[in-house]
Amino acid sequence: MPEYTTASRFQLSGLCFLLQIITIILFAVFVRYGPESSPGFCSQQLNCSWRNQDTGFQHPRFRDVHLQALLGFGFLVAFVSRYGPGSVAISILIMAFAIQWAILIQGFLHFFLNGKIYVGAQSMVSADFCTAAILISTGAVLGRVNPVQMLLLTLMGVILFTLNEYILLSLMGVRDSGGSLTVHTFGAYFGLMVSRILHQPHMDKYKKQQDTGNQPDVFAVVGTIYLWIFWPSFTSATTVRENAEPWAVLNTYFSLSASTLATLVLLPVLHEEGTLRMVQIQDATLAGVAMMGMAGEMLVTPFGALVAGFLAGLIPPLGFRFLMPVLCSRLKTQDTCGVHNVHGLPGILGALLGTLLTALATADAYGGRLEFLFPLVAQGSWTATDQALCQLCALPITLLLAMLGGSLTGEFCLR
Amino acid sequence: MPEYTTASRFQLSGLCFLLQIITIILFAVFVRYGPESSPGFCSQQLNCSWRNQDTGFQHPRFRDVHLQALLGFGFLVAFVSRYGPGSVAISILIMAFAIQWAILIQGFLHFFLNGKIYVGAQSMVSADFCTAAILISTGAVLGRVNPVQMLLLTLMGVILFTLNEYILLSLMGVRDSGGSLTVHTFGAYFGLMVSRILHQPHMDKYKKQQDTGNQPDVFAVVGTIYLWIFWPSFTSATTVRENAEPWAVLNTYFSLSASTLATLVLLPVLHEEGTLRMVQIQDATLAGVAMMGMAGEMLVTPFGALVAGFLAGLIPPLGFRFLMPVLCSRLKTQDTCGVHNVHGLPGILGALLGTLLTALATADAYGGRLEFLFPLVAQGSWTATDQALCQLCALPITLLLAMLGGSLTGEFCLR
Amino acid sequence: MPEYTTASRFQLSGLCFLLQIITIILFAVFVRYGPESSPGFCSQQLNCSWRNQDTGFQHPRFRDVHLQALLGFGFLVAFVSRYGPGSVAISILIMAFAIQWAILIQGFLHFFLNGKIYVGAQSMVSADFCTAAILISTGAVLGRVNPVQMLLLTLMGVILFTLNEYILLSLMGVRDSGGSLTVHTFGAYFGLMVSRILHQPHMDKYKKQQDTGNQPDVFAVVGTIYLWIFWPSFTSATTVRENAEPWAVLNTYFSLSASTLATLVLLPVLHEEGTLRMVQIQDATLAGVAMMGMAGEMLVTPFGALVAGFLAGLIPPLGFRFLMPVLCSRLKTQDTCGVHNVHGLPGILGALLGTLLTALATADAYGGRLEFLFPLVAQGSWTATDQALCQLCALPITLLLAMLGGSLTGEFCLR
Repeated sequence: MPEYTTASRFQLSGLCFLLQIITIILFAVFVRYGPESSPGFCSQQLNCSWRNQDTGFQHPRFRDVHLQALLGFGFLVAFVSRYGPGSVAISILIMAFAIQWAILIQGFLHFFLNGKIYVGAQSMVSADFCTAAILISTGAVLGRVNPVQMLLLTLMGVILFTLNEYILLSLMGVRDSGGSLTVHTFGAYFGLMVSRILHQPHMDKYKKQQDTGNQPDVFAVVGTIYLWIFWPSFTSATTVRENAEPWAVLNTYFSLSASTLATLVLLPVLHEEGTLRMVQIQDATLAGVAMMGMAGEMLVTPFGALVAGFLAGLIPPLGFRFLMPVLCSRLKTQDTCGVHNVHGLPGILGALLGTLLTALATADAYGGRLEFLFPLVAQGSWTATDQALCQLCALPITLLLAMLGGSLTGEFCLR
Repeated sequence: MPEYTTASRFQLSGLCFLLQIITIILFAVFVRYGPESSPGFCSQQLNCSWRNQDTGFQHPRFRDVHLQALLGFGFLVAFVSRYGPGSVAISILIMAFAIQWAILIQGFLHFFLNGKIYVGAQSMVSADFCTAAILISTGAVLGRVNPVQMLLLTLMGVILFTLNEYILLSLMGVRDSGGSLTVHTFGAYFGLMVSRILHQPHMDKYKKQQDTGNQPDVFAVVGTIYLWIFWPSFTSATTVRENAEPWAVLNTYFSLSASTLATLVLLPVLHEEGTLRMVQIQDATLAGVAMMGMAGEMLVTPFGALVAGFLAGLIPPLGFRFLMPVLCSRLKTQDTCGVHNVHGLPGILGALLGTLLTALATADAYGGRLEFLFPLVAQGSWTATDQALCQLCALPITLLLAMLGGSLTGEFCLR
Repeated sequence: MPEYTTASRFQLSGLCFLLQIITIILFAVFVRYGPESSPGFCSQQLNCSWRNQDTGFQHPRFRDVHLQALLGFGFLVAFVSRYGPGSVAISILIMAFAIQWAILIQGFLHFFLNGKIYVGAQSMVSADFCTAAILISTGAVLGRVNPVQMLLLTLMGVILFTLNEYILLSLMGVRDSGGSLTVHTFGAYFGLMVSRILHQPHMDKYKKQQDTGNQPDVFAVVGTIYLWIFWPSFTSATTVRENAEPWAVLNTYFSLSASTLATLVLLPVLHEEGTLRMVQIQDATLAGVAMMGMAGEMLVTPFGALVAGFLAGLIPPLGFRFLMPVLCSRLKTQDTCGVHNVHGLPGILGALLGTLLTALATADAYGGRLEFLFPLVAQGSWTATDQALCQLCALPITLLLAMLGGSLTGEFCLR
């Protein structure tokens, strides 16, 4: 985190105070725990589909809530490794605020639709998805904005994320349980556009952090371990359950394995130094995760996950070597943690893979799962091609919203 | 850990050997696994209420046992960040001994009451609560006592903790599922009194560790992450379950979020350096946790948890700045890891909040939960005010036992 | 990881590519997810007993899969602490490949027996056991072989592990739920024989890493914490469940506690420096774990676990002090991470303890468990002595296979 001046110190203190007080007042007026009988905050309504109706899970258990907290932390630790431990403090601040704010904003949207805000395990899951997207966005600007700007970015980012998720999941009926689109792609491009607006030609922070010594590697080790341990189970939290093989979990494991090997195929060729750096392994892991966001629960065979993971693992080394200098010099977009290579491109690729798999979805291949994955297709009111077109349209919409929103946020809030 | 001399090296070795042999013999004579049909070591008896009858959970599952192990480790990692990695080795030793010893002592108490010692998942949970309190106590004296003294402190602390917990939970019927009183307040004040007795005017270790470089920050990051991930679920292990929103979990998350922001409100004002240190964020997290110990399962609305967490997050920065120098100079009490600011005061505040909420408890607000939270109130044999008075009395009793016990331990065992 | 030359850089890249492509093709041709109704990949067949029929667990739940991933990581982090963070990258590569390869090889064995390869949560568990054994093996040669040799070692090791596990668990009906023999003993001696073949008299890497500073201690702390938190639950994943006290979990906790104290008994006597090093505590933890591999679910009383853990904790300090110089000078076997002291000897001791307990197994002591632990004994078609002889024979078979396989692998693949 950059050293901040006396003025900005008091600005930060005041903004924190103001935001927390506003949040507390809004919580006091609007937010209540749901009645005991209802499992989530929007389970019985038909026109509610936060992640509920369309994922088919009805009884979020206690442990699920805790699992979700890992999501934010996986990302958090991941970024620490790229920019040093100084950035964690600010990331935790962002996370603490984003969780509260996301519950409020998502609650308000629901309030306008249904007339009440009930909070429960379910809404904590939604808020954590949102927090993950915001942390990805901050990865693009880390080290070049002050904490006050970070908080404002969070303020706007949460609203835009909620809007995008509502359009995709509720209005269009897109299926994206692991967030290839809603989390990875949205987060990356929102952050990149903010970074582009804030571009300062004289700063070359990116180069600096590339040269840091062993210290960050400790975090990269911890970050990679977190991702391997917790991510696959996390993926299963919002997916089909009960008496079915955990495809999403297994596919994510296979994808992680293959993306790690893929990175090892490219790294020795691209770099001459001859030592593997932990952050590069971690980037491969993150890319493998982003790739499986949408397709994880749709892949019917393990080798599909291996192939997808292998392709995902090739993106970060190529991106850091060839794409990032172009982004920086031509498009004037600095990308501190390389979120474009690690989340943006693999997220888009994952969305395309998911679309392809949706188009090929048949009752034969999925069996009883089809009902949970694509209820409209299973009921016959929609063909698999319709669903696939819908999934495909979600990509440009997300990109548009993220980039437009990022530009406006950067221009009007952070300047 | 301080360098120890040849004499104390052999002392340590001998004491470890002696304690382990005694423990093994006592285990061999007295301790058996419970019969298969009974879930815990004291489930069918009416006059047994370790954490069983009064918490209403009947079937501790395998995973719960493992969750409890996290409790000790959360604290352990937390202290490492304040005093450096050298202190972990001794902390793990303390933990390894405290677990065995706590199972024995709690078993003996039960033996005198019921005539047998059965060990099971349940008793491991109780032992872990005890271990957490002991680790908090050691936080106050870390760096100023040798390993032999640490083991003696553990020996006495476990006995006193068990006595205090028995008086509070079993005799008085106090409800303190997360240990605001039994773990945080008891642990902090027991350790502080030992520290006061052992006061050596010429040592200024505290100042030294404040100046350490980046190294401890690695541990503070890991410690904070552990607390965020595992604590909220941990809280739910001893609380109401089955078909109810996990209030304790959600309230703890909200409390953690708000306490993090609260610390960020104060820090820029109190310190001129202009960089956030991870340990300060971690202190806020711990304070938010201690605050929710008793009240976590009683808070009916999310905004209550936000307000409580916000207040808890203000305590550590103020305490380290204004209270600790006074404690050190006037009251001759050094506090290596600042457990008074992080566990003591938030624990007391949490107990007071819990008392207030107990007084306000009505069947309307709690619904079916009332039966689990306050069975006597639900049955009508006690009013909410009676229960609240009982909870209030628990505070001075805990303080008295902790401080008296700490003085005696310091005076007669550690000198 | 040693610096590798340009030639070996391209070798590594090419080998990774080749192995991944071969694996993908084999997966594409042979491997499918199991049909929805079957919980594992070999559940209905009688003559299939991977870890299924003989462990008595029928419904691997989602969380189990994720738990298993921790196994590999526990070891991984453990080795990092002995050799520095540079070795993690290569360990993760090994892990990523070993998981895929183990699923394939175990699947093929099954293919020859049953005519199909179905993959599910169950096979991921088996693959993780295998990965753990391979990581132990690499611990013996870390720092003295290049990544290409590591991959070849993995290639051969997985095949030999699968063969050994098939002979022990399926053909002989040996019960070894935590892998004292199949994982710890096999992994250690396989690695040691490879190390012996690759012996280079002029290298004294071992001495070097003994002198490293504080850096590795960070990993030892994290590694020890991982083991304490996750290992006991992990042990329960393949053991008796449902309405029974989690003996394996509790015994493992007791064993860890006692082994930590035992190490503290010896360390001050053996070393003069006077500071405890975290890696030594971690070695004790690992030894306590290896000791409970077979016996964990068979021990009827807690004090048995304390005694066994105490003995296990004495092995690593004695081994590092007295055995390792002999191993290195007389037997020409370098052992980078000391796997012989930490996995090999405690594994053998654990197997002997398990054999003894099997010989003493009676329906009185085990009650309903006997049916799950030793189904043949419970049915009366075998006496406890027969089962014990069978368990005993498994030890020389494992040693023979590991050492012969290690020699051949070292001689023909890695030279």
